[in-house]
Amino acid sequence: MNSPSDPADFGARAAAYVQRLERALDRCLPAQRTDPARLHRAMRYACEGGKRVRALLVYATGETLGLAPDALDSAACAVELIHAYSLVHDDLPAMDDDALRRGRPTVHVAFDEATAILVGDALQALAFGVLAEDAAGLSAERRVRMLAILAQAAGSLGMVGGQAVDLESEGRRIALERLESLHARKTGALLLACCRLAAAAAAADADTEAALCEYGRCLGLAFQVQDDVLDLTADSTALGKTAGKDLAQEKSTYPALLGVDGAREYAQALFARARAALQPLGARAAPLRWLADHVAARKF
Amino acid sequence: MNSPSDPADFGARAAAYVQRLERALDRCLPAQRTDPARLHRAMRYACEGGKRVRALLVYATGETLGLAPDALDSAACAVELIHAYSLVHDDLPAMDDDALRRGRPTVHVAFDEATAILVGDALQALAFGVLAEDAAGLSAERRVRMLAILAQAAGSLGMVGGQAVDLESEGRRIALERLESLHARKTGALLLACCRLAAAAAAADADTEAALCEYGRCLGLAFQVQDDVLDLTADSTALGKTAGKDLAQEKSTYPALLGVDGAREYAQALFARARAALQPLGARAAPLRWLADHVAARKF
Repeated sequence: MNSPSDPADFGARAAAYVQRLERALDRCLPAQRTDPARLHRAMRYACEGGKRVRALLVYATGETLGLAPDALDSAACAVELIHAYSLVHDDLPAMDDDALRRGRPTVHVAFDEATAILVGDALQALAFGVLAEDAAGLSAERRVRMLAILAQAAGSLGMVGGQAVDLESEGRRIALERLESLHARKTGALLLACCRLAAAAAAADADTEAALCEYGRCLGLAFQVQDDVLDLTADSTALGKTAGKDLAQEKSTYPALLGVDGAREYAQALFARARAALQPLGARAAPLRWLADHVAARKF
Repeated sequence: MNSPSDPADFGARAAAYVQRLERALDRCLPAQRTDPARLHRAMRYACEGGKRVRALLVYATGETLGLAPDALDSAACAVELIHAYSLVHDDLPAMDDDALRRGRPTVHVAFDEATAILVGDALQALAFGVLAEDAAGLSAERRVRMLAILAQAAGSLGMVGGQAVDLESEGRRIALERLESLHARKTGALLLACCRLAAAAAAADADTEAALCEYGRCLGLAFQVQDDVLDLTADSTALGKTAGKDLAQEKSTYPALLGVDGAREYAQALFARARAALQPLGARAAPLRWLADHVAARKF
């Protein structure tokens, strides 16, 4: 039987981490009835559901580095808030124009477009606020470093820049290299930030951080290749979002460039590279190995 | 003749502060040609022009507290970035649907709607990034405090919340109290934050901060009352934005509730209250007195 802190048993703790994140989100989001109530209701709606891969990545990196989870609650909230805001804005009519997300109507459908814009804006501010006001005892130096990491990952050289390149690329066939650079930003930057935030919280040494970054980069890219495959092969009910969108919007995807089987193999190779990057960290990186396997096995 | 540091002569230094802010913005914004170039071009476009009242308020508060301006460049940038992003999003078709801003086509007209959404998102992230990465030698404790102040001012209990209430109130007559609370958030929160950011950078004592906050609140409200009057009485060319919008969108305004003369008197009373709030600070608050007079005299 595994003890609660057995690193090999992260899977047994994942559900508890998700609950922990949900509670932390609930604490940091203004109450439903706080004025303006409609905005706050919509913010909470936007944050419900989701696989919480980013929060799990923060906590798993934290376990690997020996950090107590309460030192990472605000970082886990912050990445999920940034992720939630980006989905709300990506789904807008002027962007990907999607009506379904996490198995429910998107925010601009359930509420209205203006509210969806404001929800995204407010969730982004809240992400930085949560990190800045964190009372968990991390030093101000570490928190400022974490805030800088989050801002880089979220901004025009990170996630938002990736979305801009993605929109520019619609209807055009782009080279694998460009697609890789697009996804390194659009999905990869925030996933990488999860590892970097935990490393900054623990003040990890440079070698450890480099190993974690390589893991985070490979995992992020694998995640996106897999997303492209699932968009083609899974149905909307399983995905909780509209399937087949990439084809409809004439987006360049990994299956389009490599074939479905080629893309699947590429994803598996990237997951293997992510695991290999953890080698210098030894047995303590078991939570991150579990997470790579968990993500590799996902069907939606 | 006044010496360069004569507090009574802030007006002679205001243009230099605006230039200083423009240079700092230029440094923190990614270059036009940095990929994705269209996004970065649009971000720079969105940050051009403007009266820079918020940056001046940061610097004037800093002078009052004896801070060197280089300690405040990143705070001045951050408030102008947040302000610029909020204008881009407020002008979107789903929001106020405006085609003219700062005398030029709005971002979604000059570029496109998706780009305008992303520009706003990226400018917000950059605002927090600039503060977090500030190399001016402020301690991490002070910077974290400043980041928390900015997040509060920008979020759903501040600026974004005010915009949400404003949209809800379209076509409805609301009471003066509700209008005041709306504007305390929509315009007031960020103007107040300018004073609070400088106070946090200087680690001002509680009495000084309270006086500055009272000044900032009165100035912010006066600014908005004046804005409502100018929307009715100035023309679009002078304003650099579409005049008469409030009436067209059936917004509740101060002139609607108090009459044009009544609103003008109310603005003047608020400017006087702002000046009175500075009394405990003595002669060193001359920069803030100048700024109140300067804003009170504006015609656009």
